[in-house]
Amino acid sequence: MKITIIGLGLIGGSIARSLKRSGDYFITAIDNSEQVLLDAISAGVIDRKASVYDLSDSDVVYLCVYPDAALEFTEKNKALFGKNTVVTDVCGIKTYIYPKLKSIADEMGFTYIGSHPMAGKEQSGFTASDAGLFFGASYIIVDDGSDKRARDVLEQLALTMGFGKIVYATSEEHDKAIAYTSQLPHVLACAYVMSPMCEKHGGFSAGSYRDVSRVANINAALWTELFISNREALVSEINTLISNMENIKEAIEKQSTENLSALLTEAGDNKRKYGRFAGGMINGNQN
Amino acid sequence: MKITIIGLGLIGGSIARSLKRSGDYFITAIDNSEQVLLDAISAGVIDRKASVYDLSDSDVVYLCVYPDAALEFTEKNKALFGKNTVVTDVCGIKTYIYPKLKSIADEMGFTYIGSHPMAGKEQSGFTASDAGLFFGASYIIVDDGSDKRARDVLEQLALTMGFGKIVYATSEEHDKAIAYTSQLPHVLACAYVMSPMCEKHGGFSAGSYRDVSRVANINAALWTELFISNREALVSEINTLISNMENIKEAIEKQSTENLSALLTEAGDNKRKYGRFAGGMINGNQN
Repeated sequence: MKITIIGLGLIGGSIARSLKRSGDYFITAIDNSEQVLLDAISAGVIDRKASVYDLSDSDVVYLCVYPDAALEFTEKNKALFGKNTVVTDVCGIKTYIYPKLKSIADEMGFTYIGSHPMAGKEQSGFTASDAGLFFGASYIIVDDGSDKRARDVLEQLALTMGFGKIVYATSEEHDKAIAYTSQLPHVLACAYVMSPMCEKHGGFSAGSYRDVSRVANINAALWTELFISNREALVSEINTLISNMENIKEAIEKQSTENLSALLTEAGDNKRKYGRFAGGMINGNQN
Repeated sequence: MKITIIGLGLIGGSIARSLKRSGDYFITAIDNSEQVLLDAISAGVIDRKASVYDLSDSDVVYLCVYPDAALEFTEKNKALFGKNTVVTDVCGIKTYIYPKLKSIADEMGFTYIGSHPMAGKEQSGFTASDAGLFFGASYIIVDDGSDKRARDVLEQLALTMGFGKIVYATSEEHDKAIAYTSQLPHVLACAYVMSPMCEKHGGFSAGSYRDVSRVANINAALWTELFISNREALVSEINTLISNMENIKEAIEKQSTENLSALLTEAGDNKRKYGRFAGGMINGNQN
């Protein structure tokens, strides 16, 4: 099976590494950095550099670049994708990108399905990529169901990469959920470390500082694009969060033990009822 | 060396377990639950139940109960503490409790020093206690320096428990820092899981959901007391955070790539510059 990866960053590199672990894939890749390609070859993570002519006979092409770059690449090379090639992206937003890529695919007669591997790291680039990144995580597929075979191919590959769960969603469902589960925590982490107290945390911090601030080590260019592309759903979640914080603040200011305790109890109940995330890494345990 | 622990919950139980690991301590304890005391004895975590008469000949007494309960216990039994006994609390707030306990100690002629083990878990009670809870964490001491020997005793015990760092602070410094590093993340986590989207996170969430929501599994009674006791510093940090979130939100709403990217870059720089928390558990790695 021939796989071509466009962009060997954290996600593209991890896809290559996790597939190569099984040994059965011939993997080619395109990247802006010649050095990254050479490193990936010498590490045995890809078989060789790809050219755009590899798009025609690849079984699957993974677009692992930022949303606008994925659109641009596909538009520019749309005539080169093979009729049997399954093209998918890995972008963290879907309403912005799915209809555009789908329409190019329909126009040119190749198959496109959207996907979003729900895994990442607060580091980026090929050096941060990891064959175990996807263990137990969710693989979200956004698709109109027109090509059952292509779905099966992507599902099988996702399971081979180590994903623990395949989830189907519409673009809209995806973006609304991701605004809450992923984008909002990134906004929060950034707002949190902008407090003047941040520089004084040493010696006074433990697990809850670590966890809230972790993803503040953010890839600003990527997340700027993601936040703005999903602004409606994200702003709505930011407003909900601020309003919930205002309620807790009011109870604290009024020293209302009863109201505050009721709010915290509700929060604790939600956390216990709706549970942990879908899979993967184990928690640390320091508050 | 004889140690008496008042309250065998998460922290008291972990103190007993981590000291017992070294084998050199005779540990007695008081707890509201007879069952917890029996469990602790049969697990070899304490040597026997304590009575208030053990307060007179203990080398160290750890008050491991909620702030108001620590005050009440100390006031009620103030005549029973030995002149050579070092009494310390483990409360997460200090301006509220330190002067009161210090004044009782000065009145009665025993030594009191405030302390705050910077470690915890999103679970509570003796069953959650853990001999490794304190590994690499900070042990904060609040003290006027009047009894050097007592300081040394507490420091040595903290190192035996596995703490990685001893930090001195005034009550005010402590409470201001803790409002940011510990209380604010707990407020955030609770506000976060109160979104109507929380119940739909399954399949769409990964590490950043996990990390922001972790401590929402909160002990409502304890944190209600802690938040209200430290309301001034905490409300100030909540306001700073809301204001930082409003700035990010505004850049997203205006689709200002330049402003948003500048804010995220500043956040990322802060995170990298001011670094990780002081010690302990390793990060997970899923966004």
